Amino acid sequence: MNWQVGTMNHVNDIPDKFFEAVVPGAVQLDYMQAYKKAPFAFGTNVNDYRHLENRFWCYKTTFEKPNLNEGENLIFLSKGIDYEFDIILNDSLILHQEGMFTPVKLVLNEYLKELNTFKVVIYPIPIAKGQAEGRSQANLSVKPPVPYGWDWHPRLVPVGIWDETTIRIEPKTQISTFDFTYQLDNDLSQANINIQFNVANSNSNELSYSWSLYDANKKIIANEDGEVNKENTIISASINKPSLWWTHDHGTPYLYTTELQIKDTDGKIIDRKSRKVGFRKVELVMNAFSWDEPKVFPKSRSTAPFTLKINNRFVFVKGSNWVHPELFYGAITSERYLQQLILAKQCNMNMLRIWGGGITNKESFFDHCDSLGIMVWQEFPLACNNYPNDPHYLKILEQEAISIINKVKKHPSLAMWSGGNELFNSWSGMTEQSHALRLLNSLCYKYDRNTPYINTSPIYGVGHGHYLFYDPDTDEDVFQVMRRAKNTAYTEFGMPSLASVEVLKQVIPKEELFPVEPSEAWKIHGAFGAWKESSWLEIKTIEKYFGKAENLEELVWQSQTLQSIGYKAIFEEARRQKPKCSMALNWCFNEPWPNATNNNLITYPNITKPAFDAVAASLRPVTSSAAFKRFDWKAGETLEIDLWMLNDTYQTVLNGEIIVSITIDGVKTKIGNWNFEDLKENENLQGPTIRYSIPENTKMQLVKVSLEVVGKEAYNSDYLLLVNSRKNDTRKVNRLNF
Amino acid sequence: MNWQVGTMNHVNDIPDKFFEAVVPGAVQLDYMQAYKKAPFAFGTNVNDYRHLENRFWCYKTTFEKPNLNEGENLIFLSKGIDYEFDIILNDSLILHQEGMFTPVKLVLNEYLKELNTFKVVIYPIPIAKGQAEGRSQANLSVKPPVPYGWDWHPRLVPVGIWDETTIRIEPKTQISTFDFTYQLDNDLSQANINIQFNVANSNSNELSYSWSLYDANKKIIANEDGEVNKENTIISASINKPSLWWTHDHGTPYLYTTELQIKDTDGKIIDRKSRKVGFRKVELVMNAFSWDEPKVFPKSRSTAPFTLKINNRFVFVKGSNWVHPELFYGAITSERYLQQLILAKQCNMNMLRIWGGGITNKESFFDHCDSLGIMVWQEFPLACNNYPNDPHYLKILEQEAISIINKVKKHPSLAMWSGGNELFNSWSGMTEQSHALRLLNSLCYKYDRNTPYINTSPIYGVGHGHYLFYDPDTDEDVFQVMRRAKNTAYTEFGMPSLASVEVLKQVIPKEELFPVEPSEAWKIHGAFGAWKESSWLEIKTIEKYFGKAENLEELVWQSQTLQSIGYKAIFEEARRQKPKCSMALNWCFNEPWPNATNNNLITYPNITKPAFDAVAASLRPVTSSAAFKRFDWKAGETLEIDLWMLNDTYQTVLNGEIIVSITIDGVKTKIGNWNFEDLKENENLQGPTIRYSIPENTKMQLVKVSLEVVGKEAYNSDYLLLVNSRKNDTRKVNRLNF
Repeated sequence: MNWQVGTMNHVNDIPDKFFEAVVPGAVQLDYMQAYKKAPFAFGTNVNDYRHLENRFWCYKTTFEKPNLNEGENLIFLSKGIDYEFDIILNDSLILHQEGMFTPVKLVLNEYLKELNTFKVVIYPIPIAKGQAEGRSQANLSVKPPVPYGWDWHPRLVPVGIWDETTIRIEPKTQISTFDFTYQLDNDLSQANINIQFNVANSNSNELSYSWSLYDANKKIIANEDGEVNKENTIISASINKPSLWWTHDHGTPYLYTTELQIKDTDGKIIDRKSRKVGFRKVELVMNAFSWDEPKVFPKSRSTAPFTLKINNRFVFVKGSNWVHPELFYGAITSERYLQQLILAKQCNMNMLRIWGGGITNKESFFDHCDSLGIMVWQEFPLACNNYPNDPHYLKILEQEAISIINKVKKHPSLAMWSGGNELFNSWSGMTEQSHALRLLNSLCYKYDRNTPYINTSPIYGVGHGHYLFYDPDTDEDVFQVMRRAKNTAYTEFGMPSLASVEVLKQVIPKEELFPVEPSEAWKIHGAFGAWKESSWLEIKTIEKYFGKAENLEELVWQSQTLQSIGYKAIFEEARRQKPKCSMALNWCFNEPWPNATNNNLITYPNITKPAFDAVAASLRPVTSSAAFKRFDWKAGETLEIDLWMLNDTYQTVLNGEIIVSITIDGVKTKIGNWNFEDLKENENLQGPTIRYSIPENTKMQLVKVSLEVVGKEAYNSDYLLLVNSRKNDTRKVNRLNF
Repeated sequence: MNWQVGTMNHVNDIPDKFFEAVVPGAVQLDYMQAYKKAPFAFGTNVNDYRHLENRFWCYKTTFEKPNLNEGENLIFLSKGIDYEFDIILNDSLILHQEGMFTPVKLVLNEYLKELNTFKVVIYPIPIAKGQAEGRSQANLSVKPPVPYGWDWHPRLVPVGIWDETTIRIEPKTQISTFDFTYQLDNDLSQANINIQFNVANSNSNELSYSWSLYDANKKIIANEDGEVNKENTIISASINKPSLWWTHDHGTPYLYTTELQIKDTDGKIIDRKSRKVGFRKVELVMNAFSWDEPKVFPKSRSTAPFTLKINNRFVFVKGSNWVHPELFYGAITSERYLQQLILAKQCNMNMLRIWGGGITNKESFFDHCDSLGIMVWQEFPLACNNYPNDPHYLKILEQEAISIINKVKKHPSLAMWSGGNELFNSWSGMTEQSHALRLLNSLCYKYDRNTPYINTSPIYGVGHGHYLFYDPDTDEDVFQVMRRAKNTAYTEFGMPSLASVEVLKQVIPKEELFPVEPSEAWKIHGAFGAWKESSWLEIKTIEKYFGKAENLEELVWQSQTLQSIGYKAIFEEARRQKPKCSMALNWCFNEPWPNATNNNLITYPNITKPAFDAVAASLRPVTSSAAFKRFDWKAGETLEIDLWMLNDTYQTVLNGEIIVSITIDGVKTKIGNWNFEDLKENENLQGPTIRYSIPENTKMQLVKVSLEVVGKEAYNSDYLLLVNSRKNDTRKVNRLNF
């Protein structure tokens, strides 16, 4: 199917020129291709796309009238058109819709001529009147706000046909809905299954159905046959000892296949639908010790529950905040999702928070998460705005939310719904009273009540931040911040670093590469003014610890080293705070275009930063771990190393010995050990504090503290700390890596 | 209509004996009357009713077949039958229902014989299996938990026909629903009204309607005429500059009357319905300064909104927690409600929290609140329990909640919905994830979204407690507790005292009256073991300040004086914390039977305690106020008196002068003054701290600090403090009253 697209001033205009369109995709990508625009990710090129925001666009395809049998329809089918649009066949307006998440399915028969012109007219991007430039312009639409401009995303708002779209012949008699729900017994020994389906045009024939559930070896586990009702047909079944869906770190993400066949009286198969399903129970319960607070009168409430139980098991959640991996999300493919999700699994992550600033992903994303055993925390597309009690907005939100729920709820990887990002903080200004959130809670309760729902993140007890290695406002480094933090979960925390030199050369004009100054290109790519003026490069922090870099390559090493150290500090401290703390998700995993500086672990498109490996190490199911009071120490001071063994598995970890060493001036010295007992399932063990006097004459340098678990190399951990000499340092630091 | 009732072992038994029944009422009351039982409120008599819990009861009435015209039905109508019941006419089971808040309306025609026996069979009280004795036995039913036993309520669980009930002839063609909703413009200058009604049996005739809105002077403000639809009929109207419904302390609780008449083609009125309505806008918004927190990373959410805006005006909420005024709530009359609500208004209260442990009141309660200008915070009947995700429970809860919402939402006095009491604390164990609360939020959103909904009290930022004048655990008195409290609202706080000597003589056996010992009678009436072992008499606290009382009358004075001082301290401190604090509601206003000791302001049935007057003074719209660091001082110490003027009105309070005096040994001495500026609308003014050295040789005594506002006696305030001598006191304190 060939699509063309053109642009116009008014909804009823005809474009002067049509050019080739890639569907699914985005009109801006087609425009860029047609007009041979320079790559949008380079320099300040992104600004050249701003004038396209208030354009109308017309997709067009032509086709001859197909031969339709009596029992057939010609169907237009789209899983997503972004954002407001008309659908027109031969000058007949068939549909006007606002909302990119509600699929479109239209029967075209009655509009057909011999030669047909099919059009999708896309409206200008939605902009809430009276709002200042930026994300708040998205606060009256169910359009993800991130492309309106974010610290890691330039202002560039995609529109167009963004998900699978086709025109095809389909039988009139077909399975129109096919729901599969289940309830697990309290002890998970039985799954009670309920299947409901509808057959469109079922009046034309006496129909029978055959439903089967297959296991992963394609063996039939359950099956039912019967007559199709004119209305809803309901099937009940139950299976004993179902293999459960587990996250990859706790078991097998076991998937079954549910299949429905519809047959006519001759036994001929009229239609067939099948999909993968998994059995899992998910609950959001109180964190350990949370009911003990508050202790004194007047008493307020206890903190909100934030511990996930999967299949009756407390699971410590380790993961990241996911953002869509292409700025033009219409261009994301199943393979693109898969590449990054495999990396998330390699990083020992068992959950991704799909943050409300971005899109709800295409269905293949959830298929991969199901298969890989990665949980999904799905937010609705609300973030950092005050979405008002506006009747039109609430109507579109209801429509879009129902579509999102119906798409996602089928997937066993779904672990939690959330209304959106940071809505209960001053920069958003929403509350429990906001109708949008009461509506979303209502809809999730109505359609998927057995999956937890939260209004937003953070809720009471949960923490977002910090996003800096060192905060001059409180004079604390990341070790110090985390030692005083007492949250039930850390669902966002960041640690910025530069991209690799190779990536920087691809996005920053050569003459601006070094020394790094706050030019427009660096700013657009997140190095300056992204959050505070100093974000995200935070050059003063880098220089505070390491001194001035002599070249770009050195600066990249400094920046990436701090990121690795910082992320390791936060993730491990969060784990050590288990069971009071239940979750650690950093901001962020990936990015939609190549930023020069960002808090991500993976540079666009799929380049791991050194912090990726550091985090993967910190998130091993079993690991040794050391806690430090701060990052930088002075020669002559006594370094304190709090030893831990961490166990997030449900196996006992057998006793052993940790040897603690420190490497100074390239010389490794044993400074202590710990004979640790057996670790019980899902329990950490706190060991002794090793004290070591840093020699008075130590020069300024990075030193390495190593924990070696005798005979269990897989549990070893390394830490880098900074030692300052007793004299004024020249701030020239050795390069030492993990 | 004459009703009889009898008791039986099984649902299908016939009672051995029927005795007279009062309808509405409770079976236990009828039983008590029939068997001439001693008054249940005296001594330990209440225990004699325990064996009735697992009985079935049969109400019976007989009547001859009435002459019914073709257009008439014989109807059974009940506004409430408690709790599970069958309705049987001439041995035909017409209805089985669980739930006391869902009205019953049944057409009896088809079951009629010449002589008819109509029965209502009441089941035993609901008791959740496996639960320990007490309130948790109510955690699988929508039965208010308080009669299962509470600190101020004995175990005595009413059942029976508890609200208006009748059998009567009605026309078949009648108005079956008549809804009136409205939206006020942002500036409140216009009310857009929507009326929807249904007419039952409207097919039989061509019908017209006439709808009118009358103002308080019976003048027609709006009216519409038209044809009645077979289905829903919808009328729209709008009125300019509606007189708004205000609380009594902010304006007039203005009420209109909406009236609908249905006429046949001859213009004959077939049916007519009318009721009072009021226009008001109510919002729950963030408290002042709440968005400023949290300040440091990791950042959690800001506190939940808890400031009420009525008609775009911030209203400081002052009031109390209401409990139903009769243990046998079926016996409550409209007059009984009115007597107590007039007292609440006299106490300068503008809101009552209808706590989830008790019933949702009968409709006349809300009518009175509408007329008197008292806001209602209505909770659903959930309290201090973990109501589980049980399908049957949730089904009954949905049915009952819809009935409650439809009854209450019509009333302009309704200011807030709440899921129930203290559900997010350890002693309940519910969370945002509980299906019952997600359901209630959904239903309130669906049927009454413009009224605020909270899941429970306290929510984040709100405080419950303290309930003691002095807490030995923290060694703090009520002044000290409130000085460190920083809550957004104080929605429960208590201060116990003995009932009057006269009341005590009515409920405690004579020989147990004095000295007071923890006998069963005292315990059942709340003096011992009600909360802690010492509650609520707290005799050690009384003796700590006042020494041992010589007789009952002295003990009552001591206890009631501490209650007055304590309540005054809390209410005024909450007001001084405005606008950060927005609300102060004490626990509790009234009681359902005469307790010997309780936190109430009104002893059963309608006897005001001295604290009632003290609270009324503290809640005057404009008042002077003094803050103290603590209650007891030593001779020679410097007493500090922080001066304030408090203004909850939207009028400017003109400048003036406060003269501060202290009365010691009966001698009143001027110790300071304050020339205060004008107070702006709804703003308090903090004045100087007056310091006064208590003479070294002062004997132990209560002293009085008086604030006299020159020329404005109405703003004067008095405070009692305790001074201890420098030597060991004999703890014999003078009687000094406010």
